[in-house]
Parts: sequence; C-alpha cells; structure tokens
Amino acid sequence: MRVCLGIDPGLARVGYGAVAQSDAGLLPVCYGCIETSPSMSFSERIMKIYSDVNGKIGVIRPDFVSIERLFFGKNVKTAEYVYQARGVIMLLIAQNNLPVTELTPTVIKRAVCGSTKADKHTVQTRIRDILTLDEIPRPDDTADALAAAVAGLSL
Amino acid sequence: MRVCLGIDPGLARVGYGAVAQSDAGLLPVCYGCIETSPSMSFSERIMKIYSDVNGKIGVIRPDFVSIERLFFGKNVKTAEYVYQARGVIMLLIAQNNLPVTELTPTVIKRAVCGSTKADKHTVQTRIRDILTLDEIPRPDDTADALAAAVAGLSL
Repeated sequence: MRVCLGIDPGLARVGYGAVAQSDAGLLPVCYGCIETSPSMSFSERIMKIYSDVNGKIGVIRPDFVSIERLFFGKNVKTAEYVYQARGVIMLLIAQNNLPVTELTPTVIKRAVCGSTKADKHTVQTRIRDILTLDEIPRPDDTADALAAAVAGLSL
Repeated sequence: MRVCLGIDPGLARVGYGAVAQSDAGLLPVCYGCIETSPSMSFSERIMKIYSDVNGKIGVIRPDFVSIERLFFGKNVKTAEYVYQARGVIMLLIAQNNLPVTELTPTVIKRAVCGSTKADKHTVQTRIRDILTLDEIPRPDDTADALAAAVAGLSL
C-alpha cells in the first residue's frame, strides 16, 4: 500500500489530504486544513505551518508528497508571502527525506476531472466520488490537497 | 553593543553580514555569501541554506536580523523559487526567536548611500568606507547584506 500526502500550500490555509493506494483502489487516510490568522505575525504563521504540517507528516508517514505549484499571474503582492509559506513546506518535506512531486493545477485537474478547466466545485464532487466520501471535502483547499494526492498516485 | 545580522536572501546566493554598533561606531563582525549550485535539486538547495544560515546565526548570535525585501516586477518565474528560499530564512529567524526588520532595497540605499538610486558599486564602496574595510565586499550579495545590517542599525 502506497500513501501519498497531497498538499495545497498557502499562508492563510494549507490543505492536506492523504490517500492510500491499495488493491481495493484509492482510500482516504485523513484530510483537513491548517489555518493561520491574519492577526498573527508572518513569523508566527510560518512557525505554525511548519509545526502543524510536520505533525501531520509524523502521523501519516506518507511514502511521498504531491504538492501543488502556485500561479499568480500579475498578483505578485500576494505571491510574495504565499511562496514563502510554500518554501517552509518544501523545507519540511526535504527534512523528512520524502520524495516530492510538484504538480500544476492544470495537471491535477486533468488527472482528477479529465478536464483542465474544471471549477472548484467539480473538483470537490469528483474527489467525493473517487474516494467515496459522504460529503464534498471542505474548504476547497482540502479538496485540492486530496486532488493533488490522487493525481500524484495516478501519474 | 548591539549586533545586527543583515541578510540578502536568494536561492543561488544568500549574502550575510553582521555589524556591531559600539561607542566607537559601526564594526564589521563577519560577512560572506552562501552559495548553492543549480546542479543541486531545489530541496537540496533550501536544506543547505537552512543549515548554513542556521550555523551563521549560532556563531554570530545577533540581537536582531535585518533582511531585504525582494522585488521582481514581472519576473514571477524567478520569484517563485527565490521567495521560497526567503521563506526558509524567515522560518529560521523565527525559530531562533530573533526580532526581524524587513527593509526594501530603497530604504536600505537611502540609509547607506543617501540616495535611493545608488547602483551596486556605490553600495559596495559606501559599505567599505562606513566599515573601514580594506576592499569592497564581494560579491554584491555580501555588500547588500552588510548594507541591510547598517540600515537596520540606523533606523
């Protein structure tokens, strides 16, 4: 059984979702969203992300990580801090000696939904169906993390 | 005596420069440049940056850190990895419980050269004169780190 931890990186919300690939198909292991408040300093926020994601890796013990690449277009102001948060997560993955797959949103959508143009709700319902969850995973950061894991296992 | 560690963040080169503020004026403590090779994986590069900058902090034991903010304009492709490397350094600063000042290149140039339009060579010669060094600090990442420290101490 191979376990992939999918991560949708961010500063305010880091989605995580672990999926196991067994003979019976894909099974959800655990998933959720780590949140940091804008009332915290940037230093406090990245410390929390480092600590919380490290805790999840310690519990899940994935075989590898599949992390979404970020695209901002012209919104460089937002990019500045979100990329820095992603760097902290990439460091953690390296420190835990885990192989990592970096996938673009386009590749993930194609692998999960069969279309590169799927919207957030389509990703959520598709992930619910693939992993036979009772409800769609929320927020969409969690669904995106599970989608990164599913895509990582399918490639 | 107050010691400020200046950092010019990057992926290929991280400039560092520690400056002490004493009754006799500003004194250079140590300075240099941490380099990572493009032949290394991104994971290896940020692991080296984390380890080497942490080593410098351990030896220097600064009272605070002054780190340059990055501006890329439209060059978001480069920004992606350099911002992530900066995030690793920001994490380290936070983990070492050090106060941090983030200064724009403009603020640093004004504090060190008296002009916001100073070029790299002007910053290098100005830093040589302020810190009475025998030569200009090289590469310019090292000079920029010392400039960040001098500016951090002057504000």
